[in-house]
Amino acid sequence: MADEVILLNYWPSPFGMRLKIVLAEKGIKHEYREEDLSNKSPLLLQMNPVHKKIPVLIHNGKPVCESLIAVQYIDEVWNDKSPFLPSDPYQKAQARFWADYIDKKIYEVAGNLWTKKGEVQETAKKEFIEALKLLEQELGDKNFFGGDKLGFVDVAFIPLYNWFRGYEAFGKISVDKECPKFFAWANRCMEIESVSKSLPDQDQIHDLIVQIKKKAGLE
Amino acid sequence: MADEVILLNYWPSPFGMRLKIVLAEKGIKHEYREEDLSNKSPLLLQMNPVHKKIPVLIHNGKPVCESLIAVQYIDEVWNDKSPFLPSDPYQKAQARFWADYIDKKIYEVAGNLWTKKGEVQETAKKEFIEALKLLEQELGDKNFFGGDKLGFVDVAFIPLYNWFRGYEAFGKISVDKECPKFFAWANRCMEIESVSKSLPDQDQIHDLIVQIKKKAGLE
Repeated sequence: MADEVILLNYWPSPFGMRLKIVLAEKGIKHEYREEDLSNKSPLLLQMNPVHKKIPVLIHNGKPVCESLIAVQYIDEVWNDKSPFLPSDPYQKAQARFWADYIDKKIYEVAGNLWTKKGEVQETAKKEFIEALKLLEQELGDKNFFGGDKLGFVDVAFIPLYNWFRGYEAFGKISVDKECPKFFAWANRCMEIESVSKSLPDQDQIHDLIVQIKKKAGLE
Repeated sequence: MADEVILLNYWPSPFGMRLKIVLAEKGIKHEYREEDLSNKSPLLLQMNPVHKKIPVLIHNGKPVCESLIAVQYIDEVWNDKSPFLPSDPYQKAQARFWADYIDKKIYEVAGNLWTKKGEVQETAKKEFIEALKLLEQELGDKNFFGGDKLGFVDVAFIPLYNWFRGYEAFGKISVDKECPKFFAWANRCMEIESVSKSLPDQDQIHDLIVQIKKKAGLE
């Protein structure tokens, strides 16, 4: 039986971009379905009744929710090409630790950069730069977190990069001056076709942020 | 070389209890070191410089942080006995999903049960019972989330059980009436020696909650 793979997603989601990269890198044929989050499809509500969130990977009718869990699932099922997690248990634990850090710390702080003002925004700026510097340190002299090739942590982290123009504009930070190693890494990632084709344009995200802020009265 | 395994922990931590259960179940010899969280040891700060939190598993000098990641690490390294994660990728993804749900939802809501008052507490009560019911549904007719034996989700969830007397007393809920299947499951878990020996007494946790509330002026 041929595998039937469907990705339920909403284009600006950095979590959905992770799955797009991994599916592209492994060459897994799939159907992409864009969701309208203000009017979620019956399929989305049926496939992710707990969180009711995108992205959802549906493999032969069965859902896998939560992006990092879905990346691991894809890596385990389609294990003949482009492994994202190392096989060594310790290296694997380290990769999981940093991906978890990105989810817990970076994404949380990043939201405060452009939705908050005053002291909360100032704290977010400081914490955001600190977190990026910590990740720069973890990257060290490697080309990618995965070594010579894209790994689990790269896939977890790079989708955020396309939100940066927005962060810089509305969070009033300039990441490139503070974290040059981060930018060099991001550029290396963006040279990989599976990444560049899976990420929307920075300007599109910037415009979306403008719209969201307007709608929420955050200007 | 014999494995050197050290567990840095603080006794009431449900996250630390997860590691105690898994180490006990697999019969892994280790040294237990109790941390004073008001005066963290240099070893803890060195081994978990990012979060500075317990529990930390130190295996031959190398740290693994974040309890669910450490449980997976132990399961992968000591893979000859008592596997906690299923080998099937889909079952594994499902186990990871529910353990993640427990971390994201149950632990967050549980805190509000005994630290908050009024509307926030009422919402927490409702959400807590709803979340338990959802987990009861996932358990279904199985003895354990892992099937006939303790699995990843059981290990993630059961440490919370010993906080229940405190939740019931201060959150003014009675879980046993609302979620009888949850209680039957918890009792089955507590009959397993690796679990009962790894969890502190419910009264000890209750007394700790009393102390914390007093100290924080939450009475």
